[in-house]
Amino acid sequence: MKKYNVAVLGATGAVGQELLSLLQERNFPAAEIKTLASARSAGKEIEVAGISYTIEAATPESFADVDIAFFCAGGSVSKELAPAAVAAGAVVIDNTSAFRMDPDVPLVVPEVNKEAIFQHKGIIANPNCSTIIMAVPLWPLHKAAGIKRIVVSTYQAVSGAGKEGMDELREQVEASCKGVEVEPKVLPVGSLPKHYPIAFNLLPHIDVFDEEGYTKEEWKMVNETHKIMDPNIAVTATTVRVPVYRCHSESVNIELERPLSPDEARQILAEAPGVKVLDDPEQMLYPQPLMLEGEDDVYVGRIRKDLSVPHGLNLWIVGDQIRKGAALNAVQIGEVLAKEGRGI
Amino acid sequence: MKKYNVAVLGATGAVGQELLSLLQERNFPAAEIKTLASARSAGKEIEVAGISYTIEAATPESFADVDIAFFCAGGSVSKELAPAAVAAGAVVIDNTSAFRMDPDVPLVVPEVNKEAIFQHKGIIANPNCSTIIMAVPLWPLHKAAGIKRIVVSTYQAVSGAGKEGMDELREQVEASCKGVEVEPKVLPVGSLPKHYPIAFNLLPHIDVFDEEGYTKEEWKMVNETHKIMDPNIAVTATTVRVPVYRCHSESVNIELERPLSPDEARQILAEAPGVKVLDDPEQMLYPQPLMLEGEDDVYVGRIRKDLSVPHGLNLWIVGDQIRKGAALNAVQIGEVLAKEGRGI
Repeated sequence: MKKYNVAVLGATGAVGQELLSLLQERNFPAAEIKTLASARSAGKEIEVAGISYTIEAATPESFADVDIAFFCAGGSVSKELAPAAVAAGAVVIDNTSAFRMDPDVPLVVPEVNKEAIFQHKGIIANPNCSTIIMAVPLWPLHKAAGIKRIVVSTYQAVSGAGKEGMDELREQVEASCKGVEVEPKVLPVGSLPKHYPIAFNLLPHIDVFDEEGYTKEEWKMVNETHKIMDPNIAVTATTVRVPVYRCHSESVNIELERPLSPDEARQILAEAPGVKVLDDPEQMLYPQPLMLEGEDDVYVGRIRKDLSVPHGLNLWIVGDQIRKGAALNAVQIGEVLAKEGRGI
Repeated sequence: MKKYNVAVLGATGAVGQELLSLLQERNFPAAEIKTLASARSAGKEIEVAGISYTIEAATPESFADVDIAFFCAGGSVSKELAPAAVAAGAVVIDNTSAFRMDPDVPLVVPEVNKEAIFQHKGIIANPNCSTIIMAVPLWPLHKAAGIKRIVVSTYQAVSGAGKEGMDELREQVEASCKGVEVEPKVLPVGSLPKHYPIAFNLLPHIDVFDEEGYTKEEWKMVNETHKIMDPNIAVTATTVRVPVYRCHSESVNIELERPLSPDEARQILAEAPGVKVLDDPEQMLYPQPLMLEGEDDVYVGRIRKDLSVPHGLNLWIVGDQIRKGAALNAVQIGEVLAKEGRGI
C-alpha cells in the first residue's frame, strides 16, 4: 500500500494527541508524521502512545511534501494556513469550523456521506463533535423511515473545550475537596469576559451566542446536519456543557415520515456501521458517558416510541467527543483518501 | 390568625428538614410542630434553623390533634399512614407518588391549580419535583398561547435521591481527589441490584423502568402534567441524573396553538408568580443550577423561537429540587389551607 506523508497541526492539543495515537493504533499508511504547533511549542518533544515527536512551528512553508494534513488547531489557524497547505499539494482534513459551511468544502461523516470526500478541492471538513455523534446513528434511521424533525438537547463533556476545559473541571473538583475556591478561567467560552464554574454545575452556553438567541454550537447542529444528512430535516437544538470529562451525550427526539418501532430501530442500528446498541432496561443497560471513554463507536440506548406524535422515537446517544467526535472521524476520512488513493 | 397543629413525617430526610426550615422562615401559623420518622430515629434530637426538635416514631396514633400533616417519607409509608392521619382528622399533604394519580386526590402546584386544593377528601398530593419545576413557567404560556406538545429532557440533581444521593456524589468526588475507587451504592435507584457512579457521569435512569421502556419518572412528567395543567397536552420526556447537588434543570421544547414570540414569552413569564426570567445572552445571563441553590423561584432563560415548527419555543428551566420541587410547594399548599381556613 502506498504510504503518505502526514502532518498534524495542533499536535499539542487534546485532539491532536488523540489523532497521533489513532494513526499508530489503526496502522495509518504514514511514511512520515510531522507534528506542528504554534512557534511557542517549537522544539518541544512530546510522547504519544510510546512514540516521540518533535514539535515544529507551523508556517505556510511547513506543508511541502505533505500529502495529508490534519488541522486540529483553532479556526483562525486553519483559515491562515489551509490555503498554503493546499497550494503545496496537501489535502487538508480540517477539524475546525473554519470551512465547514463553505459550499466547495465537503463536510463528512464517513458512515453517512463518504462519497462527498472525493469532491474536495483541497480541503475536507470534519464536522462539529455533537453533530457527528448525532449523525452516525440517525443516518440509518433516516434512510429507513425518513426523519422529518429532530429536537435535541445535549449533555456535552468539557473535553469539547480542549485540554483547558478538562483541566478546569479537575481543578475545580480538587478545590472543592480541599474546601477552597478557584476562579473559573475557561468555560463557558475562553475568549468571553465572564467565566462560570462547571463542577457541580451546568452551562447552557457552548461557543458564542449568534442569531435568534442560539449559540453557534446550536446552529452547527442545525446547519451541519442539513449539509451532511439532508437539508429537509427540521432541527432544533439546545446545547449544554456538563461536568463530564470526555463523552458527549444527547437526548434526541425524532419525528419520522413512516412508522418505525423501537425494535425495528434497534435492529437497524445494530447493523449500522459505527453504532452499538446498548438498550436493555431490565438489565439496567444504557449508555453512560463515564463508561464509554476511549470507545470508537457511538452508543445508543433508551430507544422508545414517542407517544406524543404519530411516528416518533426518543433516543439516548453517547459518543467519545475526542475520538469519534473529532480525531477518529478525521482519521477515518484520511483512511478513505489513502485507501482509494484518489484525490491526494 | 388561627394556628394549626402540624406534623412533619420524614423529618430526618432532606425534604423534611427543608420543610421544617421553611415553616419557620415563612412564619407558618403553626401552634405545635410534631416531627415524625421511623422508629429507628425515635428520641433523636435534630436542629433545623436554630430550633431543636425531638423525633417521635410515626404510628397510626401519631395524628390525634394534628391539623396538617406533611408526609415526606417514602410512598409505602404514605400508603400505610395517610389513611390513619385522615381518619384522625388531619389533612395530609403528601410529597410521595403514593396518591398522585388517585382521582380523589388533588395534585397541586399552587401557581397553576390552587383551587383544586379545596376538592380534597383528606389527602392533597405534591407533584413530582421535575413536573413542578416545569409546570410553574409553562402554565402562563399555556394560558397565553395553548401548549400542544412538550418535548422535555431533564438534567436532575442528586438531591432527588435524597440525602443518600447527595452524600454519594460527595463521596465519589472525594474518592476521585484521593485517587481511590468507591463502590456506588445508591444511584440510579437504591432498591435495584446494580449501582453506577454519578460523579463525572450521567444516568439516563431515574426511578424504575415501567411501560414502553419509559422510567416511572418519565411517566410522572407525562401523567402529572396532564392532571395539573391539561390532559390535552402531548408530553414526551427523557429524564437524566447529572452530577449536580440540588437544582433540577430542564431543556423544554414546546409547540403552541398560537404564535408567541420570545419577547412576549419573556414578558408573560416576568409577570408570572413563582417565576424569574434570567435571559440575557449578551450579558451571559442564563439559569445555572449551582447559582440557584436555595432559591424559591423557578428560573427561565435561553428563550428562543424554535424554527423547526410553526409556533415553537425552546426554554431552559432551573429550580431548586428540594425547595420548589418538594418542600416549598408542600408548604405553599399548607399556606393556602391555613389562609382560607377551609377544609381543615
